[in-house]
Amino acid sequence: PRYIDWSPLLAEKGGYKHFMLKEIFEQPRAISDTIAGRLVEEEGAVYLEDLSLGDHELKAVERIYIIACGTSWHAGLVGKFLIEDHCRIPVEVDIASEFRYRNPVVNDKTLIILISQSGETADTLAAMREGKARGGKNIAICNVVDSSIAREADGVIYTHAGPEIGVASTKAFVTQLVALYLFTIKLGRTIATIDKAKGQAMIASLVRIPSLLEKSLELNPQVETIARKYMNARDFLYLGRGINYPIALEGALKLKEISYIHAEGYPAGEMKHGPIALIDEHMPVVILVPRNSNYEKVASNMEEVIARGGRVIAVCSAGDEDIRGKAEVTVEIPRDSDDLAPILLSVPLQLLAYHVAVLKGTDVDQPRNLAKSVTVE
Amino acid sequence: PRYIDWSPLLAEKGGYKHFMLKEIFEQPRAISDTIAGRLVEEEGAVYLEDLSLGDHELKAVERIYIIACGTSWHAGLVGKFLIEDHCRIPVEVDIASEFRYRNPVVNDKTLIILISQSGETADTLAAMREGKARGGKNIAICNVVDSSIAREADGVIYTHAGPEIGVASTKAFVTQLVALYLFTIKLGRTIATIDKAKGQAMIASLVRIPSLLEKSLELNPQVETIARKYMNARDFLYLGRGINYPIALEGALKLKEISYIHAEGYPAGEMKHGPIALIDEHMPVVILVPRNSNYEKVASNMEEVIARGGRVIAVCSAGDEDIRGKAEVTVEIPRDSDDLAPILLSVPLQLLAYHVAVLKGTDVDQPRNLAKSVTVE
Repeated sequence: PRYIDWSPLLAEKGGYKHFMLKEIFEQPRAISDTIAGRLVEEEGAVYLEDLSLGDHELKAVERIYIIACGTSWHAGLVGKFLIEDHCRIPVEVDIASEFRYRNPVVNDKTLIILISQSGETADTLAAMREGKARGGKNIAICNVVDSSIAREADGVIYTHAGPEIGVASTKAFVTQLVALYLFTIKLGRTIATIDKAKGQAMIASLVRIPSLLEKSLELNPQVETIARKYMNARDFLYLGRGINYPIALEGALKLKEISYIHAEGYPAGEMKHGPIALIDEHMPVVILVPRNSNYEKVASNMEEVIARGGRVIAVCSAGDEDIRGKAEVTVEIPRDSDDLAPILLSVPLQLLAYHVAVLKGTDVDQPRNLAKSVTVE
Repeated sequence: PRYIDWSPLLAEKGGYKHFMLKEIFEQPRAISDTIAGRLVEEEGAVYLEDLSLGDHELKAVERIYIIACGTSWHAGLVGKFLIEDHCRIPVEVDIASEFRYRNPVVNDKTLIILISQSGETADTLAAMREGKARGGKNIAICNVVDSSIAREADGVIYTHAGPEIGVASTKAFVTQLVALYLFTIKLGRTIATIDKAKGQAMIASLVRIPSLLEKSLELNPQVETIARKYMNARDFLYLGRGINYPIALEGALKLKEISYIHAEGYPAGEMKHGPIALIDEHMPVVILVPRNSNYEKVASNMEEVIARGGRVIAVCSAGDEDIRGKAEVTVEIPRDSDDLAPILLSVPLQLLAYHVAVLKGTDVDQPRNLAKSVTVE
């Protein structure tokens, strides 16, 4: 395998005010690099050079754990949807600091996928060792070549996001989503839950992502205006359903990390079981409502928020007149594959957190109390 | 089976200012009623009269889903710890509104446990039907006899909490925890992961709970004083680890539901991956730190919060001088079985939410925007 060296040049801000903004704008390139050399388009298959696990090992997998912390855990939650839907193998997503002290049920038919940008996250490394001691095989999704987790793992899927300097992860996150999507195709083709035609279609969708992302980045000035409008809110809610629910969590975490606004993500269907009590005319609610199979359900949750006076920022599919007519503001993303919507939805949420933080004058790239990689427990 | 009728008398406030407070104080009785007639102490076994599933069916179970909404979902998260730890069967806990649209992996070796106080929760009912259509067996944990979910389920474990009027669930929640504990013993004894001696010990711990709960209720005046001290905070964090982490979620939900303060629960080990950015001298942090196997880890998370200026309300084991010396205030609960600590920890968190809400003058029993049972999707 050929590893791309990270030149010191890449680590400069290149004209952007902050590393975070630069890294948000690098995402189309980061995804292209993560895909490059891994597609066998004629076969509807993918090639993962350091996966190490052979076909017979993948075929023996009966259960999958995905284990991570923070933003990487959100990527794992998306991965669960992808793998269960396309491969029909049960996937449990766990937080590393919980898994390692849980006395988890693991055996030699369990595959454990560890996700860590740095490859040095202490809890994730410890969880990996815990799983291995119990007989599980493992694969790491890491952004740093030869990091501790990558070195100890049975196999690795490197994300080729390049060095990420901003403490709030952006491009590493979306490349983790791509790595999980590639793994889903690999696994599904191996165990025959994805046939050649479906593999080809899944690949075709993936190949379109970098240019759709470029388009989403054009939303930047509009999102800045929205940030100005809502920057003084004390609290935010983020709602989504299904594969986009983890993106609601991630959007809230991003805002929390860099703007210190108390933002919280929820599955939209849970709103009525508690958080709806918080909603009043001071509460901006970011709702992820692209045109997919959950669309009607989320749109109806949106109307409940509006009925209670909440101020809705809807992230929806381009040209959705219905949502435009109801939400206070809309941010419209290109519509393509439902499986990859989490990537496109991430962009406006990253930009929203970024601009709110800049407007509030916080230290965007080095937010208080946070470290880029958490190498202690 | 003999069902206890709910007399109209029981549904009056009986001298308490609110149903919620009355129901908090009824918890020792509710738990005794939920245990009554179900223990075979000499055998270290339990008898669940409406379980319906035979031993051969329990022995065939390879995976368990626990599905619920809101507070019941938190009970399910505790159930996962109990069942995995004592029965070594993988348990996945899912939110009903997510499960039903997830294309979940279910087969005839999957047992689905549905938890709903009312037995009428629309999403939980739909999730039950979805799981059944895919071949899974199911058991309902309900508080209302002959409710829709109870009627349609293959088997039922009724909680005998009596009618719960306050919208914020209290006594129904702790009896759900008891039901899951009873089921764990039943399953473990059947599949021989729990032997007679261990079953006897588990039962002995359970039998002690009502009187330990009575003791915990004596904390009421002290918790009221604490509520007065922190009632003007805009935000709260709740932290716990392992089996007590769901109680952090539940404590936060309770405060959110009735006081409209934005409270959020987190696994304590995740704090460094984001929420720690929120912590400053305005942020009360409720930390669940009883003396159990996670104690050192949680105590160290507590010190991180203190180092960043956060104001710590520690819920700890009686007489813990170390914690007393560090936290701003402590609430001390009796120490007994780690598995049942979630029940004892719940009491001060319920009382805290209750008193903050009363002091803020909200409508405690009928909080804005919320319904007692969510019978629409």
